[in-house]
Amino acid sequence: MDIPVVENVLKLNDEVASINRKTLTQAGVYTVDLIGSPGSGKTSLLEATFKQIGQKARIGVLVGDLTTARDATRISKWCPDVVQINTGKGCHLDANQVRQGLDRLKLEELDILVIENVGNLICPVGFDLGQNSKVGLFSIAEGDDKPAKHPYIVQEAELLLLNKMDLLPHVTFDMDIFKEDITRINPTVKLLEVCATNGWINEWCDWLLAKAGK
Amino acid sequence: MDIPVVENVLKLNDEVASINRKTLTQAGVYTVDLIGSPGSGKTSLLEATFKQIGQKARIGVLVGDLTTARDATRISKWCPDVVQINTGKGCHLDANQVRQGLDRLKLEELDILVIENVGNLICPVGFDLGQNSKVGLFSIAEGDDKPAKHPYIVQEAELLLLNKMDLLPHVTFDMDIFKEDITRINPTVKLLEVCATNGWINEWCDWLLAKAGK
Repeated sequence: MDIPVVENVLKLNDEVASINRKTLTQAGVYTVDLIGSPGSGKTSLLEATFKQIGQKARIGVLVGDLTTARDATRISKWCPDVVQINTGKGCHLDANQVRQGLDRLKLEELDILVIENVGNLICPVGFDLGQNSKVGLFSIAEGDDKPAKHPYIVQEAELLLLNKMDLLPHVTFDMDIFKEDITRINPTVKLLEVCATNGWINEWCDWLLAKAGK
Repeated sequence: MDIPVVENVLKLNDEVASINRKTLTQAGVYTVDLIGSPGSGKTSLLEATFKQIGQKARIGVLVGDLTTARDATRISKWCPDVVQINTGKGCHLDANQVRQGLDRLKLEELDILVIENVGNLICPVGFDLGQNSKVGLFSIAEGDDKPAKHPYIVQEAELLLLNKMDLLPHVTFDMDIFKEDITRINPTVKLLEVCATNGWINEWCDWLLAKAGK
């Protein structure tokens, strides 16, 4: 009995996601759905991104969290266009929550929108939010086996980032295994190594600016 | 329309969890539901636990993952009583999956059962599996803000572990903030600092043995 309900929920989500996509496309906003585990460095990446290219492109952010506005508060130091979405016990953002977030942004003034999803490598993958690209964020500290164990984000992402490269000397991490698993699961996905906390994010910034036509 | 279905799913889960709890109690098995983010070190913790107390208590393991048997393979080097449960795209274990796993273990020969849940700090918290205790695993690399941002695991856990203490010199982590948030959310939860990869897990092993009456 529950399967039709779940299908309806996903169908409704997809319909709202299509509306979001149309709204964002008409406003000329390139939109990324950023997905990663708790502590993979999503917010740190955004802070570093603002420092580096905040003058070249106007970037808005929707931040999903169970509770607290901590991430939005951090980002608001760099960005006036930030909205926090608290999901309660919800393990991912859905298109309707994003829809409500979009209503609070001046989209026509933005070049880029980053939706920082709830910290979770599983549930957010299955929900279309109306984004142009899903970007998956792994970190060195999580271990080299994460692409194999979480293949759906690898399959769905247009870009994967491997963060916390500064921790590589301090942990056991086989880069060959990490990369081979990714290539096996999704031969076309792009992978960039970054370190948000020391600002080593040039390639990510170039990718984002190019996508936004900047 | 979907709310009754969700309630029924949870009710059914709770019924099966009660059966699991009865089965485990009758067999004299102390059962832990181990919950943490991807890469928090759940499997490494279990490997270290077997090295340290595998001769003092017989420990069985049910391992939940979306896909692959990598974790079970790692653990099977130390433990003959391990069952892998693949959830497909499922973001948590449920009581029925655990029920099926229990059927494949010789419970009467075990002292302790650890259910290594799917790597996810959100969804597994809400599902009773029939365990005695939920144990939450954070790691230094995830940052000091995780208890505040993921309060439900803090509320539900009897014990919290903070892993990867060896990375403390290499990252920004305010231990006072981490501990204050935990105490505010759940004043009675116990917190132990551990480092699975270098075997610094004595207090965790003592806790586990005491719970199992060993």
